[in-house]
Amino acid sequence: MGPRDVLIEIRYAGICHSDIHTVRGEWGKVPYPLTVGHEIVGEVTEVGAEVTRHSVGDRVGVGCMVNSCRECDNCKAGQEQYCLNGNVGTYAGTDRDGTVTQGGYSTHIVVDEDFVLRVPESIPYETAAPLLCAGITTYSPLAHWKAGPGRNVAVVGMGGLGHMAVKIAAAMGAEVTVLSQTLGKKDDGLAFGARHYHATSDPATFKDLANTFDLIINTVSAPIDMGAYLRLLRLDGTLVAVGAPPEPLPVQVFALFGARRSFAGSSIGGIAETQEMLGFCADHGIAPQVEVIPADEVNEAYDRVLKSDVRYRFVIDINTLR
Amino acid sequence: MGPRDVLIEIRYAGICHSDIHTVRGEWGKVPYPLTVGHEIVGEVTEVGAEVTRHSVGDRVGVGCMVNSCRECDNCKAGQEQYCLNGNVGTYAGTDRDGTVTQGGYSTHIVVDEDFVLRVPESIPYETAAPLLCAGITTYSPLAHWKAGPGRNVAVVGMGGLGHMAVKIAAAMGAEVTVLSQTLGKKDDGLAFGARHYHATSDPATFKDLANTFDLIINTVSAPIDMGAYLRLLRLDGTLVAVGAPPEPLPVQVFALFGARRSFAGSSIGGIAETQEMLGFCADHGIAPQVEVIPADEVNEAYDRVLKSDVRYRFVIDINTLR
Repeated sequence: MGPRDVLIEIRYAGICHSDIHTVRGEWGKVPYPLTVGHEIVGEVTEVGAEVTRHSVGDRVGVGCMVNSCRECDNCKAGQEQYCLNGNVGTYAGTDRDGTVTQGGYSTHIVVDEDFVLRVPESIPYETAAPLLCAGITTYSPLAHWKAGPGRNVAVVGMGGLGHMAVKIAAAMGAEVTVLSQTLGKKDDGLAFGARHYHATSDPATFKDLANTFDLIINTVSAPIDMGAYLRLLRLDGTLVAVGAPPEPLPVQVFALFGARRSFAGSSIGGIAETQEMLGFCADHGIAPQVEVIPADEVNEAYDRVLKSDVRYRFVIDINTLR
Repeated sequence: MGPRDVLIEIRYAGICHSDIHTVRGEWGKVPYPLTVGHEIVGEVTEVGAEVTRHSVGDRVGVGCMVNSCRECDNCKAGQEQYCLNGNVGTYAGTDRDGTVTQGGYSTHIVVDEDFVLRVPESIPYETAAPLLCAGITTYSPLAHWKAGPGRNVAVVGMGGLGHMAVKIAAAMGAEVTVLSQTLGKKDDGLAFGARHYHATSDPATFKDLANTFDLIINTVSAPIDMGAYLRLLRLDGTLVAVGAPPEPLPVQVFALFGARRSFAGSSIGGIAETQEMLGFCADHGIAPQVEVIPADEVNEAYDRVLKSDVRYRFVIDINTLR
């Protein structure tokens, strides 16, 4: 505990696909021993002498980063996620003291107060957890590219991120369409606020919806046929990737030319924006749909995530670790 | 001549790389016999009975399109270049009467008055011609993505389009950097208004200029290393392709993620915007640097364009055709 640190007794931790990529070494060398997890909520049990933002007993959360340089243009602009010197990831990052950061599948975590979020009273702990990654990762591009009334927004994929994107975009007032491989989750999608639901396995989808969307949020990490999806954008529309395969995606530049379309990427969100997102979700009664599991079912949960067999986010009850 | 048509006696016609692609069949089947050329200036010598926008004796120009549906959302928004029913190209297009449109390497052309531009008195005919394609193709994205004071703009390539992009971006008040294969045209680039000039053959360029630009205009049609160029963009920066290879470009999505960057495409400009561009160039004393050639040197000029051996645009003196 440093003077500006907060000790958090963790209650729940969400399972993000990134955890699986990391644990299985798919994103490069893993600095073992490592604890993953970056959708963390719990209660403050101790604060450093200089901490002013949080108090013992507060309901708080920690997302995908626990520090940044705080001096670069992007940090000063409140965009710590794009820190030019690299933000410190919640796990597998290199902390200021040179140690490897450890994530939220754990009973406790110590985090600098500036990277600790306040969790509104009206959001239960277990559903608050996924907001810290899946929530902000979809809220940030929806806000930045102005999802709202009169805007046609498509969400590609109905997983952990996708179902949050649907709920948030609908709450922002946009007309939401889900583009999913099959119609298997259609009832859920409409219940979450989507107005339309189409199967991407049906070629008619790409014909019928050409030149339709102002914004497409692609939550799918697997490669997609970029040209086909880009052509669904209307004039000046943007397709934003929030999940991505490690290999480069072939982009048909003529599909961009055709309607001054853009292909963009977005990574989580800044700390102030994450706090704003939590307020937005509280105000609109938005929460992810979760399956709470005990800690000893994590490996099985990972397999089910990879099979898209989860509706829609696994959350570990950390009390089962104590 | 229809009632809304304008007959133009052509004075000069610019040579665009598109002409070469078309003539050589590189963009698919060519509807022979075909006359190319879509950078056209001349004098009005006859107008249809219902024409109100132009009069005999007017100095006028015609760019890359001669009609559009006028009914779709994009046409109604003044973005005829993105007509959802397909605009009618100045050559090799299918005209309203089913005939194939013929371009500007010709003594005369007949065009609907709404697609005829007024050429300001202060711009000589021979330098006005390339503004109708090279000028608007670079002006439009520079205006759309707000090149101006306080904005760092890079121009990739110093050919016909590139040298216009430099002049226009500098006139808009942006800080302009040229990224060219070599430093061979550096003196010209600085004279055109660029503040900085870097060789892309030098790996240090990509290291030194990382996270620098708000906007990159890529005028190069050959494939480039997208990841390397995208990383030159600062937070929320956009790389706009105005030239493109027919094959898909591999895009490293992680380079987009890193700073909420965008990869976009832009195609010429609308009619009203083209008129605005001509006014802007007149007001700022901007004109392309041209080499005027007689019509019987077109084949040689084509070869020189392909070798980048032109400073910076060939313009055919159509009087040599009469």
